[in-house]
Order: sequence, then structure tokens, then C-alpha cells
Amino acid sequence: MTAELSARSDALAYVHPDKSGLFAYVVSLADDSLIAAQRMGHWIAAAPQIEEDIALGNIALDLLGQARSLLTYAGQVEAAATGTPCDEDSLAYFRDERDFLNVHLVERGHGGPGGEPGSDFGVTMARLLILSTYQFGLYTALQSSTDETLAAIAAKAVKEVDYHRDHATMWVLRLGDGTAESHAKVQAALDAEWPYVEELFDNSYIDPSLLESRAAVDPSGLRDVWQRRVASVVDQATLTLPVVPPAVTGGRRGIHTEQMGFLLAEMQHLARSHPGATW
Amino acid sequence: MTAELSARSDALAYVHPDKSGLFAYVVSLADDSLIAAQRMGHWIAAAPQIEEDIALGNIALDLLGQARSLLTYAGQVEAAATGTPCDEDSLAYFRDERDFLNVHLVERGHGGPGGEPGSDFGVTMARLLILSTYQFGLYTALQSSTDETLAAIAAKAVKEVDYHRDHATMWVLRLGDGTAESHAKVQAALDAEWPYVEELFDNSYIDPSLLESRAAVDPSGLRDVWQRRVASVVDQATLTLPVVPPAVTGGRRGIHTEQMGFLLAEMQHLARSHPGATW
Repeated sequence: MTAELSARSDALAYVHPDKSGLFAYVVSLADDSLIAAQRMGHWIAAAPQIEEDIALGNIALDLLGQARSLLTYAGQVEAAATGTPCDEDSLAYFRDERDFLNVHLVERGHGGPGGEPGSDFGVTMARLLILSTYQFGLYTALQSSTDETLAAIAAKAVKEVDYHRDHATMWVLRLGDGTAESHAKVQAALDAEWPYVEELFDNSYIDPSLLESRAAVDPSGLRDVWQRRVASVVDQATLTLPVVPPAVTGGRRGIHTEQMGFLLAEMQHLARSHPGATW
Repeated sequence: MTAELSARSDALAYVHPDKSGLFAYVVSLADDSLIAAQRMGHWIAAAPQIEEDIALGNIALDLLGQARSLLTYAGQVEAAATGTPCDEDSLAYFRDERDFLNVHLVERGHGGPGGEPGSDFGVTMARLLILSTYQFGLYTALQSSTDETLAAIAAKAVKEVDYHRDHATMWVLRLGDGTAESHAKVQAALDAEWPYVEELFDNSYIDPSLLESRAAVDPSGLRDVWQRRVASVVDQATLTLPVVPPAVTGGRRGIHTEQMGFLLAEMQHLARSHPGATW
């Protein structure tokens, strides 16, 4: 096993040190979905209704499916550049925290705004509204990518995230326009998630040549429509659009929160306990 | 909220004190799937391959779907008997531990045989083989139930658990016939799960009139075929059928392990924090 382990370790030096280019772009798309799925999966059989358990489970599986397609493609890009095989599982389970490029929005726990343990359903739904509305705009535009693989992945994903957006919208309306308590909780959740919105629209990590060639979508161009869509739901839900300064983030450069470490520990534990295992 | 709470509490005195009859039978079927799904859901994005995350997520959702159909039916049976409305969510989230009638097999954590924290993939697969082979025999027979609702639920579920059985079989073969380490781990997992097999085939909790009318399936009659099916997989996987005495169990009478309490705390926390909430 020791020989296998070290062979595997050598094979894992695959992340572009400058975290730029197509590989990094595809990985950043993948990681947003992968990490969001990991957080969402915790809801299976813990939501307030069994029907909702199933809905959240299906959303998590959609996100995992997107991550899988994107990581497979990232692995192909990497393998072509380096001559070393690189697959979705290596990328999901053997990258270190600093090589994950997801936004902070998706990695934080679903606990209440005060950071208490457990999962707050309002946080989950406020975050899903923010994320799915962003992904809907992103994948809609990415369908016209000059990169045919990304265009094909986006064409499938856009239908999924459109459903996620409907689902989150329905719940934010029910919670916001529900009891005084549910209103207060989902407003607090929105306020807590809002500082992490700006990072979604930061384009500084994307290789300019990908934007020029229209392989990548410039997320900064998605901001206005996103804001109008989310504001419309927030208004209808009798909630208030938060006015808060953006958080200092660094997800796209591999700088993550403390909670990301715990998440990766859980996610990667098994695969790393048996590196290269043929099972 | 206080008035709502006490009204809700009154409405929750729905469990037949003697835990017999059709209601208890249907609940026992539902709880096996519900609790197994809750344990399985923890694997989303934590399995050794992303493909496997998705497979386990889908299996958990199948089991939740079965639980949902069965609890809805149990609620109808209860409502007809008592005149008080009773739905799937009341039964999933507002029953106390002593009113859950699932076997111990499904409620225990997926940690290693030594009880260490975390999830052991070999335990998950050994247990899934045992459970899905049992449910396959059960639902196959239940399709001929004289209770039309149960027959219809079984007809849908049997296809799902047949897939679960294929999936568990594939993994037990890969693990058993894999490396020395994976072989040893899945053998240890089988040995640890085996004491909980007998409880699946105990028929003493089923109202005799349900067996006479052929509304219920006598699980003791499923034992031999189950054993042959599992033994065939275990043999092919170069593993050994454990010879261990059955554990003292009491799941069908509402007596559960310590780990059941933690599972229910997680599963029911949110719904109980907002009883009767309209969201």
C-alpha cells in the first residue's frame, strides 16, 4: 500500500500553480456545485416535511451531477496539458483545501445566523435563492460558450437550476409571507447570506483570454439581472433587500473559511483512507 | 403559538397503545425505509466516488419515497379509526422513539464494527445487501397482498429495492474480492451486521388476523430464500457467512438503541421547533 500511496501522491500534483486558465475556470464552476451539494445532502430526512426531504435530496443530486460533468471535463483539460491522467474523483477527493475554488457562499454551514449548530431551513432557502438565481443566469449565458463541452453541460444544468430557483422562490415566499417568526428568521438568513453575494460576480480570477474568446461567461455582467430577479422575490415575500457591506472573501483564490476544512474532512475522509484502492 | 402547540399535542395521541393491527404493520414497513434513508443520506458527497454519492443519494430517496407512501397510508388508517387527521409528516416527525417500529439493523450508525465515529463504506454495503435482499423478498410477496393499497405500494417498491440489491451485490463483490484490506473490512462489517438479521424475519409483532387475511406477509416465510440469495453473493465475494448469535432486539416493539435517539433528534429537530407551523 505504501508504494501505491506514493505513486498516487506523485500523480496528484495537477493543479496549475497560478490557478488560471480553462482548468481553473471549470473547477470553480464545479466546486460551487460540489460544495453546495455536500451542504444540501445533510437535509435528507431532516427537513420539515418528507416531501421536502426528497426535493432537497434531488437538488443535491442535481448539483452533484453538474459537479461530476465539470470535474470530468477539468480532468480532461488537465490530462491534455500534463499527460497525466486526472479524473473527477481525484479532483473531488484528493485536492487540498487551497485548490478548491468555490465561493464562500456555498461552504458555510447552514446553521442560524448566530452560527449555532444544526441546520436552519431559512438559511438553506435564502442561500438556494441566491445561488440558483446566479447559476440560472450563468448557465443561460454559458449555453452560448464557444467551448462546446461547457455549452453542453450548461444546456443540461440550466433546466435543473431553473427548478431549484422555483423551489427556493416558493419557500422564500412561504417563509417571508408566513408567521411573524418565519418572516423574522428568513430575513435574518438573507441578511447573513448577503455579504457573500458580491463574490459570485467577481470576474478577476478568470483568465482574460477565456472572456475574450467567449469560452467563459463574465459574471460581472450577470449582476443587474440577478439583482432584479432576487429583489422581485424578496419584495413579494414582504422581506427587505439587505444593505450590508460585502464580506472579505477569497474562495476563487483558494482561501476558505474554517468550516470548509470540516466539510472537506467529511467529504474526503473515505477516499483518502484508501487512496488508489481498487475496492 | 401556545394554543397551536397544545392543539397539536392533543392530535398526536394516535399510536395504538398495543402496537398491533394494520396501522402498526404499515408503520413498521415505513420505519425500516425511513430510518435507513436517514442513515444513507449522510453519504451524499462523502462516498469514495462521485458516481457513488449519486447512487447512494438515489437509494436514500427511493427509501424515503417508500416511507412516504406507507406513512400516508398509515395516517389514513389511523384517521379512519380515530376520526382525527393524521398525515405522513405527523408520523415522521412527531412520533416519539418508542412509537417507531423499525428493526435495529437500520438505526445503528454506519461507523466501523468497533463503533468508531464516521462512516464505513463496507458497513453501508453489507447492511444494504441484507436490507435490500429482505425488502426484495418482502415486496415481491406483498404485491399479492389482499390489501390493495399495500399491493400497489409494493409493486412500485419492488423495482427500487431490486436495483438496491444489484448495487449492494456489485459492491460486496468488489470489496470482498478486492484488496486484502477491503476484504477484511467488509467481512468485519458482515460479522457486525449479522446479529441484526433475525429480527427481520420475526413475525411475532404482526396481528395474526392480518396474516390470515393475507393483507400482511409473514416474514418468517422469507428467511430461506433470503439466506440462499445472500449466501450466493457472499460466496462469490470470497467472504464467509457469519455464524453469530442473534442480538437481543426490540425494534418492532418500540425498544431502540441509544443511536436511535441521536438519529431522531436530527431528523425531527426542525419540524418540532415549529410544530403546526404554516411556514
